[in-house]
Amino acid sequence: MNRPPKLYDYVDDGAEIYRRSFGTIREEADLSGFGPDAATIAVRMIHAAGDVRITDDLRIHPDLVAAARGALRSGAPILVDATMIASGVTRSRLPADNQVICRLHDQAVPTIARDWRTTRSAAAVSLWLDDLDGAVVAIGNAPTALFQLLELIDAGAPRPAAIVGVPVGFVGSAESKKALEANPYDIPYLVVHGRRGGSAMAASALNALAREAEL
Amino acid sequence: MNRPPKLYDYVDDGAEIYRRSFGTIREEADLSGFGPDAATIAVRMIHAAGDVRITDDLRIHPDLVAAARGALRSGAPILVDATMIASGVTRSRLPADNQVICRLHDQAVPTIARDWRTTRSAAAVSLWLDDLDGAVVAIGNAPTALFQLLELIDAGAPRPAAIVGVPVGFVGSAESKKALEANPYDIPYLVVHGRRGGSAMAASALNALAREAEL
Repeated sequence: MNRPPKLYDYVDDGAEIYRRSFGTIREEADLSGFGPDAATIAVRMIHAAGDVRITDDLRIHPDLVAAARGALRSGAPILVDATMIASGVTRSRLPADNQVICRLHDQAVPTIARDWRTTRSAAAVSLWLDDLDGAVVAIGNAPTALFQLLELIDAGAPRPAAIVGVPVGFVGSAESKKALEANPYDIPYLVVHGRRGGSAMAASALNALAREAEL
Repeated sequence: MNRPPKLYDYVDDGAEIYRRSFGTIREEADLSGFGPDAATIAVRMIHAAGDVRITDDLRIHPDLVAAARGALRSGAPILVDATMIASGVTRSRLPADNQVICRLHDQAVPTIARDWRTTRSAAAVSLWLDDLDGAVVAIGNAPTALFQLLELIDAGAPRPAAIVGVPVGFVGSAESKKALEANPYDIPYLVVHGRRGGSAMAASALNALAREAEL
């Protein structure tokens, strides 16, 4: 089959689309609050969100990029709260063929959720304990998962190397990200304050952290 | 293991989180431009985006909901341009155990992309032809995929029952959604105009279309 006639005027070269996109983002976005490494994370998150204004709410701890990249290079797993995030991580960008782990659909989850009287997303976090030490965590869906993680760490669970905390929504989301920013364990974090967030933002942050080259 | 002490004041009952979320959305969002069925789609997309203002850019064709629901009830497949969307479709909501098809990682795609001098996302759309007749399409990533779909239809490809067109980004995204809205084939559409969109919005629209009950 041949390509049908092109009826619209649009760029169809993938590399050129990326170059123009990132060029527009760097022209329009206010990246003044970010160092050069953090700015590359912000640019990719803006790209995923289609909105340069997310920088208003984006906070990146000064050690976040180095901590997450160091962990990934040394083979740390990535723990996520939603299958969509796992699906959005570009495996070829990972520096050490890192495992991407989502426990949401583990058999044990419904029972734990019932026993703990909490959401399945939060219950799934209790299954992270064996993988948590030095891991890179990304929470893009459930505020309860982020609260649960902080509570497990407070109760003595191993500490991850870095936490991308971008749960989305209208109930608990903003509060959970404030709690992460205020975490007393010195764990470097990335948050998008307020209600916005989601799997696409979480995956884009992970993809930016995974490879140092911007494209 | 017991649940560790709760350190934060948050709602951890999943059903209650949904009820409060949807309540807040219906209180704050301007849904006046939508009929009752379209409003349920808008509410779920707002929920996924964490932003009530997406209604400013959301356009839902008057036949979209009926066309998509009718197609899904009769067993039509769902065609998507990104694995993240496929991953975000809640299978238990689907009325007829509908297939969710993403061709992006098919073996043939890189060759077609090279021959057609286009993106892999657009090339993958050329592999939809056998499934396209009466299907529900959701494009949440690549503007080139949406342009390619419209061009294939113009060249005689089978027509889908409905198109959710929410590609995201800074190059071609806004233009591709205008092209979809202006489609001369009377295919019912849903678009979020401008740069915003993405897999989460696409998946939430599909999940809302899949089940008539709001929750």
